[in-house]
Amino acid sequence: MSLLPHSIEKVIEELSKLPGIGPKTASRLTFYLYKLPETQFDVFAESVRRLKIGVTVCEVCFNMSEAPLCAVCANAKRNPRLICAVEDPLDVLALEQTRKFGGLYHVLGGVISPIDGIGPENLKITELIGRVKKIKDESGETVEIILATNPSLEGDATVMYIAKQLKPLGVKLTKLARGIPVGGDLEYTDELTLSDAIDFRKEIT
Amino acid sequence: MSLLPHSIEKVIEELSKLPGIGPKTASRLTFYLYKLPETQFDVFAESVRRLKIGVTVCEVCFNMSEAPLCAVCANAKRNPRLICAVEDPLDVLALEQTRKFGGLYHVLGGVISPIDGIGPENLKITELIGRVKKIKDESGETVEIILATNPSLEGDATVMYIAKQLKPLGVKLTKLARGIPVGGDLEYTDELTLSDAIDFRKEIT
Repeated sequence: MSLLPHSIEKVIEELSKLPGIGPKTASRLTFYLYKLPETQFDVFAESVRRLKIGVTVCEVCFNMSEAPLCAVCANAKRNPRLICAVEDPLDVLALEQTRKFGGLYHVLGGVISPIDGIGPENLKITELIGRVKKIKDESGETVEIILATNPSLEGDATVMYIAKQLKPLGVKLTKLARGIPVGGDLEYTDELTLSDAIDFRKEIT
Repeated sequence: MSLLPHSIEKVIEELSKLPGIGPKTASRLTFYLYKLPETQFDVFAESVRRLKIGVTVCEVCFNMSEAPLCAVCANAKRNPRLICAVEDPLDVLALEQTRKFGGLYHVLGGVISPIDGIGPENLKITELIGRVKKIKDESGETVEIILATNPSLEGDATVMYIAKQLKPLGVKLTKLARGIPVGGDLEYTDELTLSDAIDFRKEIT
């Protein structure tokens, strides 16, 4: 006979599998859920059960969406000749919260990572190239693609790979500035970031 | 039109309500769940839905249980004249993991906390007193009660309250030793803990 009821142990086990949640936190969360009033608990469980219901992928940018076109792609005020390629939908969310970006997105679905068995064919790279070609063919105007993967080895390799494919199309390719984050400390900043911060230095006007 | 599908936003909102989980972590967890393969996600959602199913409370010690008696109370090898009163079932789990305690438990269901509107009548204190009286009446043997609430103001107040009720019954009352935790550092230990560590000091033999 186990010390905890089976259904409780099962939830602890499942929560422990989530990223950043260890067995202690999982126990605490499970116990918190168990103690919730019935109605509040039901709302929680039902929201989890329905997580994937009605969620689809935007047919243009591959962001999560409820309609064939996501909210950004459906917005006629956005600049269709400025496309920001990101790894996943959470990056779209983070960039949207800045209210600084007026273009469209392209969700790659990850980065090239041979260790995890993810090659270029597993990402939406062909679709990005197709999108760019279509814009060029239709309007002939200049297109800027911001390659905004995370600043990691895999992210940088993915940028290099995509850049090589897009260069021949004559598009403007950019990446996000690297430097010291707000609230950061020069003393504790790693060499690569500091070196980037020097390269990306900006004139004070 | 919101940026995220409604069902995704709802799960982020619900996860954000859990203790220690902020909006960023909630987004990350939700997105992780969304990306899980269908079968793994279903196991997760189903385990959450079934959390409270089959879980009841031990009729003797009020620990979580699947049977009328919990695994500890049903174990004839445990000493019925040594009872450890704790706040909640996670404390039982923590104490059981030490394999040091051979008695029974009594889950109070919290601590006296006027700010949260929790008085002695909301806890299983009357039941504890009834349990002790029953043992005394039946066997007449000495009973030891370890009052093992968390080391907080509310925990200590609850200990004082229960001790006052139990004293007249002629039981032995104890509390867990306070001191420097293993891996702790004298320099960073707060005054109260250090002062307790001096009071509870032990002869080296």
